[in-house]
Amino acid sequence: MRELKVDLGERSYPIYIGEGILDGLAATLAKHGIGVKSPLLVVTDENVAKHYLTKVTELLEADGYRVANAVVAPGEKSKSLSVMEEIITVALEAGLDRNSAVIALGGGVVGDLAGFVAASYMRGVRFVQIPTTILAHDSSVGGKVAVNHRLAKNVIGAFHQPEFVLYDIATLKSLPDRVVREGLSELVKEGFIMDREFVEWCDANASRLLALDSAALEHALYIGCGVKAKVVSADEKEGGLRAVLNLGHTIGHALEAVAGYDELHHGEAIAIGMVGAALLSAKLGNPPSIAEETERILRQFGLPVRIPAHFDTDAIMSAMMHDKKFKEGKMVFIVPTAIGQVEINPNVPSEWVREIVDRLKGEA
Amino acid sequence: MRELKVDLGERSYPIYIGEGILDGLAATLAKHGIGVKSPLLVVTDENVAKHYLTKVTELLEADGYRVANAVVAPGEKSKSLSVMEEIITVALEAGLDRNSAVIALGGGVVGDLAGFVAASYMRGVRFVQIPTTILAHDSSVGGKVAVNHRLAKNVIGAFHQPEFVLYDIATLKSLPDRVVREGLSELVKEGFIMDREFVEWCDANASRLLALDSAALEHALYIGCGVKAKVVSADEKEGGLRAVLNLGHTIGHALEAVAGYDELHHGEAIAIGMVGAALLSAKLGNPPSIAEETERILRQFGLPVRIPAHFDTDAIMSAMMHDKKFKEGKMVFIVPTAIGQVEINPNVPSEWVREIVDRLKGEA
Repeated sequence: MRELKVDLGERSYPIYIGEGILDGLAATLAKHGIGVKSPLLVVTDENVAKHYLTKVTELLEADGYRVANAVVAPGEKSKSLSVMEEIITVALEAGLDRNSAVIALGGGVVGDLAGFVAASYMRGVRFVQIPTTILAHDSSVGGKVAVNHRLAKNVIGAFHQPEFVLYDIATLKSLPDRVVREGLSELVKEGFIMDREFVEWCDANASRLLALDSAALEHALYIGCGVKAKVVSADEKEGGLRAVLNLGHTIGHALEAVAGYDELHHGEAIAIGMVGAALLSAKLGNPPSIAEETERILRQFGLPVRIPAHFDTDAIMSAMMHDKKFKEGKMVFIVPTAIGQVEINPNVPSEWVREIVDRLKGEA
Repeated sequence: MRELKVDLGERSYPIYIGEGILDGLAATLAKHGIGVKSPLLVVTDENVAKHYLTKVTELLEADGYRVANAVVAPGEKSKSLSVMEEIITVALEAGLDRNSAVIALGGGVVGDLAGFVAASYMRGVRFVQIPTTILAHDSSVGGKVAVNHRLAKNVIGAFHQPEFVLYDIATLKSLPDRVVREGLSELVKEGFIMDREFVEWCDANASRLLALDSAALEHALYIGCGVKAKVVSADEKEGGLRAVLNLGHTIGHALEAVAGYDELHHGEAIAIGMVGAALLSAKLGNPPSIAEETERILRQFGLPVRIPAHFDTDAIMSAMMHDKKFKEGKMVFIVPTAIGQVEINPNVPSEWVREIVDRLKGEA
């Protein structure tokens, strides 16, 4: 097992990464001062519940914990105030008090939702993250928790750091292939931001990662979480630096907003967005090789690197303009200046972005 | 105008108290770095809107601010996740961004609701409190914001400190008599907690306060807010000391829970609760004169000091046991040990409490 520290002063916490470490959950809770006196609440979704809810409940109860659970429908739709209210009903009926903890068992949706419940229940109770997807390495580190509003994603939330993150590699083995690929997209993104060596390692080890090799996954999650932890430590409340984590997300979010149901997963949209950011970089005067390399590496992971031709450019642009990352009308872009290095460019003309969107649609 | 500082390190903020200071709102916003670039949202209720919404909107617009507003129904029912969601719809449609501020214009309900919106919108935007009741002196200082769940009050919330609190004495002049009295109940409570001199001053100046004399109100709010600020500064996240603010609230909240519609206002329930806490104090061996003094002073303000005879003792006890202030089944009481001095007693037997409740019902 590897351990990584997210350094946030009083709110510092460790990320544990290893195969089979879920078996030690009760001991890890106890080590972090979460005792058996107050009930726990496990929040998960229907898919994850099938595989792990019984196991988690039984191993906690074996150690004397009382465990309530809230199982939500999979997908973004569960990130709502009304689902949150239902979970709080469960928490109240189970008698959760200020010494209780909320455990997120699942991917990013579950983590965001359970985290906002933990942040808000009785004005904040302790929170534990057990991510069960590769993609969730990103959302489970950093304390950003939220639910959606029908007009905007993640617009109702908080910063609420977990007590610890427990990443059991074994839980990733049952992931569908497409979910593995999109997770690797966000993982290699951490390298594109600030770790050229990691990008090269991912490039050389793509087949091991795609085959869910334990040692490769453990290494990649350790490095990927490490990049995220480093950025978050330097900028807990998203004042500036943290924006670099949004590489590929400006175009990516817009694509998700206009995509039809199940047409484009988050990690897939981000992959296309990263290619877009690299093309924008070339237009800003950086070497075109950055875009070529970015595209080649993402293709290795079987990720899409072009916008489906039927997507409407106006709709994509419009979705981007509504994104909350645009301060007072200006377009802010995270742009690679080399492989493993990015800059925050706050003055990107929207016509250039439109041109890139069109190019991403035009070529095969 | 008087100014009081709530000392919370980086999150410190001032409370401005004075007659007519609402006229300087725009300048005060500017002084606190809240500029005209991003729209503001004023949250208020129908009663307060009638008196002040047009005025506030006009004086802000005159200084170049764009102002959206959300007017909710008066009363606790508006403190819900669904009303919160509607307010966030208004915020999104008005284009509020991370540099925007939410202004609570009203009493405790508006402050709690608007504050939780501010705490959660885009994971936290700036917040300004303009309390328009005497009672709100308590809720507007300290950063506790929340909405209710159908099973429990204030159970979904956050700690979110305002940029400043602007207390315009002039807005109190239109308050109904009963609302004045219940506000004075919570105000004299600040004295009972830790300021004997202030209790004596309130005792001597009861008629001036009831007549809404400006100088008397300004002084009383300055001292009352000062006590609250002192306690909150020492214990921002309610670790221990802050509990003293709940003098009278343990029984008070239970009475509110079992009271019929409009039968008992918050400040009235707290008055009865303070007498109850003082009777409990006598039972614990403290001088019975504390209870006699407490009762005499509260009667001066025309406040109830007995539980209406038709209230059911079992229902009151049951409501108390469900209160979130009871950690793992034990009954915690804030008990006066003298006028202007309290202790936190975590081991009060519930039979004693029941006996006091019965006594409060029995006598006239």
